[in-house]
Amino acid sequence: MQKPSIPKGTRDFSPEEMAKRNYIFDTIKKVFQLFGFRQIETPAMENLSTLLGKYGEEGDKLLFKILNSGDFLSALTPEDLQEGNSTKTAIKIAEKGLRYDLTVPFARYVVMHRQEITFPFKRFQIQPVWRADRPQKGRYREFFQCDADIIGSDSLLNEVELLQMIDEVFKRLNIRIITKLNNRKILSGIAEIIGEADKITDITVAIDKLEKIGLENVNEELRSKNISREAIDKLQPIILLNGSNEKKIDTLKKTLSSSETGLKGIEEIEFILNKTGLLSFENRIELDLTLARGLNYYTGSIIEVKAIDVEIGSITGGGRYDNLTGIFGLPHVSGVGISFGADRIYDVLNRLNLYPDNLTGGTDILFVNFGEQEENFILPLLTLLRSKGISAEIYPEPAKIKKQLSYADTNHIPFVALIGENEISKGEITLKNMKSGEQTRLTREQLITLFLKKTDTGKPL
Amino acid sequence: MQKPSIPKGTRDFSPEEMAKRNYIFDTIKKVFQLFGFRQIETPAMENLSTLLGKYGEEGDKLLFKILNSGDFLSALTPEDLQEGNSTKTAIKIAEKGLRYDLTVPFARYVVMHRQEITFPFKRFQIQPVWRADRPQKGRYREFFQCDADIIGSDSLLNEVELLQMIDEVFKRLNIRIITKLNNRKILSGIAEIIGEADKITDITVAIDKLEKIGLENVNEELRSKNISREAIDKLQPIILLNGSNEKKIDTLKKTLSSSETGLKGIEEIEFILNKTGLLSFENRIELDLTLARGLNYYTGSIIEVKAIDVEIGSITGGGRYDNLTGIFGLPHVSGVGISFGADRIYDVLNRLNLYPDNLTGGTDILFVNFGEQEENFILPLLTLLRSKGISAEIYPEPAKIKKQLSYADTNHIPFVALIGENEISKGEITLKNMKSGEQTRLTREQLITLFLKKTDTGKPL
Repeated sequence: MQKPSIPKGTRDFSPEEMAKRNYIFDTIKKVFQLFGFRQIETPAMENLSTLLGKYGEEGDKLLFKILNSGDFLSALTPEDLQEGNSTKTAIKIAEKGLRYDLTVPFARYVVMHRQEITFPFKRFQIQPVWRADRPQKGRYREFFQCDADIIGSDSLLNEVELLQMIDEVFKRLNIRIITKLNNRKILSGIAEIIGEADKITDITVAIDKLEKIGLENVNEELRSKNISREAIDKLQPIILLNGSNEKKIDTLKKTLSSSETGLKGIEEIEFILNKTGLLSFENRIELDLTLARGLNYYTGSIIEVKAIDVEIGSITGGGRYDNLTGIFGLPHVSGVGISFGADRIYDVLNRLNLYPDNLTGGTDILFVNFGEQEENFILPLLTLLRSKGISAEIYPEPAKIKKQLSYADTNHIPFVALIGENEISKGEITLKNMKSGEQTRLTREQLITLFLKKTDTGKPL
Repeated sequence: MQKPSIPKGTRDFSPEEMAKRNYIFDTIKKVFQLFGFRQIETPAMENLSTLLGKYGEEGDKLLFKILNSGDFLSALTPEDLQEGNSTKTAIKIAEKGLRYDLTVPFARYVVMHRQEITFPFKRFQIQPVWRADRPQKGRYREFFQCDADIIGSDSLLNEVELLQMIDEVFKRLNIRIITKLNNRKILSGIAEIIGEADKITDITVAIDKLEKIGLENVNEELRSKNISREAIDKLQPIILLNGSNEKKIDTLKKTLSSSETGLKGIEEIEFILNKTGLLSFENRIELDLTLARGLNYYTGSIIEVKAIDVEIGSITGGGRYDNLTGIFGLPHVSGVGISFGADRIYDVLNRLNLYPDNLTGGTDILFVNFGEQEENFILPLLTLLRSKGISAEIYPEPAKIKKQLSYADTNHIPFVALIGENEISKGEITLKNMKSGEQTRLTREQLITLFLKKTDTGKPL
């Protein structure tokens, strides 16, 4: 007799939690589809050769590796044990790993299926990923990503559409956000004009931390990376740049006037902001020069979304990359994409309690079971209701009425039908509203009309 | 530069395939919900202690095991290598495994969450499972199960509802089926009256193969298991029992008249057939005494569904079990459930080509891109269409018109909007029907009305 548990960092989802999560996934999926993105899915397991080396040394360690089936032991030598290098030895006994994100499998997908794909390819993908990270509040070992990418198109209209999708998703979810926008080319321009072009990674990694550690610590870090005092001085007004997007752009145009790359970045940002300005966005887009994200990955736009009303990391992020599929032998495929962090969005909605009322996705009406004669009357009626799209069930046995009503209660079933001898003889139904306690006597036809009306108005039952 | 591939037995799903698969999953999910089942999800990874020993020795070998993170090597000794017993040693370096089915995780879920659950608990679960089986046609290492179970209720009404759900799902999918029904108690009764009660497993395993290997080989197998000649003789009329369900039941009542258990089984079957007879089923239910399935698992009803028009294994199966959660320390929880095999159903639909027309789930209308001026006219129009639930996109750059139309074609987009200077000046849209080639000139309002009408009638665009 075992006391069961689940692996740390993983979660079960109850019916109530599933209703909430489906609300998020359905909202995101609906928006993806309205914008013409098409769904794909890839296997949970990928060959380790596909995954290793794509997420840095730390990432390689965080990959869940799957032990080879059969006689894996024969691949190990006494020297392996003696050496004790688990990271190195793992690949001798594990050739598969669990998906770590949706981007690398997507790149692999594009290369494998390039003959079938018409570019530009707008794909979305909503699947779990797994990371052997240390579990902590808000960080799980199994979590869901919702990615949308357009590949095979350099047009900045794609960025505009992605930003619009972000705005639309969070409008529908009633989460107030601020979308931060930056451009890798501007960051390159800055590194160039302060005379530290080769230290762009160190510079951006440091200024990326501004919000977290403050200006002084950022400067300290820059010094520790051997950025010259002069360069750091020149950097100050850029880091601290504030005001409206227009004002920032004006200043940047002057500051970066000698950098061709920098000016190109500004031009891109301006194009995007002009186009989004034509559309009525619910939420603000802010040019943020301290935004870097996985800098070595992105080559143009960088996008990040923060919730305004909850203190939590970014809830969506993305950007443009110029060579997603190069590593798998297909160069020059440019793309731009975003990833909604479903689990953080779930946390935000939970904390702000922003779910629609009665989000149970459950039964509309429960028929109380008084015994066999009543069952025979109810069974065909259930079939009729279900054929109209009304979710209906009968309590499976003639238990005490109190128990049956309590079942309706805990399962959030809004209506209960009481049918006894009297009702059967008249072909009627007594309907009890579980919230108000009110009881009404109805014919079958009236019952159906009532529920269809409720469904039609979009009001959840 | 690697040539990418995916692990054998796994699959990528393209947008076209996803549309088909979503059609199946959505249909099953809709029916589950109409019958009052509520969704849960469990993690892909379970502790190996939860999974091991639940699927027999063969099952233990087919579990995908996840290598422990960090320094797993230190758990191995030179003796482990020398002994070379991979099965035994695996658990020293792997403490987690991938879900093998949805039943054991569900049992674990019920025990862990028993305080929150109100019984009877009607749950459904649609998730992938993984088995290190040898891949072959129609057998994958990653495949989806769609399970519905009711636990905490002995009522046979539950069986009736499950059979109705089966009928409804396949009616909606347009797959003609035959549902086979048996009862473990009848099988026990048979073993009893032929005087071989202790050999019930051998007997049922043998007669389960009737369709596959024929009567003579079944008898041969029975003899090889030391079933007496007299018992085998007695078994013949039962194995070969045919005719209507009523006729079979009449015969069985006589044959099993001395077995209390057998008669109980008949009574259960009769109850279920009487109740389903009250409902108008699309497909036939057939009492099949040769149906056994995982006999040691089921204690009452046994259910299996075969497609009539395609030669393939069972596409759905299930039954009643009396002690699902006992192994995790919660005895006496009876349940009954069914599992739809989504991947086999997918194969059946593919072979019979039974998908609804235009099942792309894709874009309703593509706007051709002629350049920046047109983009500025189109972008707000896209927003308007999407706000009405119409899936719309603009080609991201002013490519050659032939290329843009070909994009619409390969992505199955039924309508293309052509907007040039002339249209902009009049605020109109030229709409091209990609199927007929027909072009119409419309106002914005007319365009929206046209698409809403198409959506309203439920006719896919």
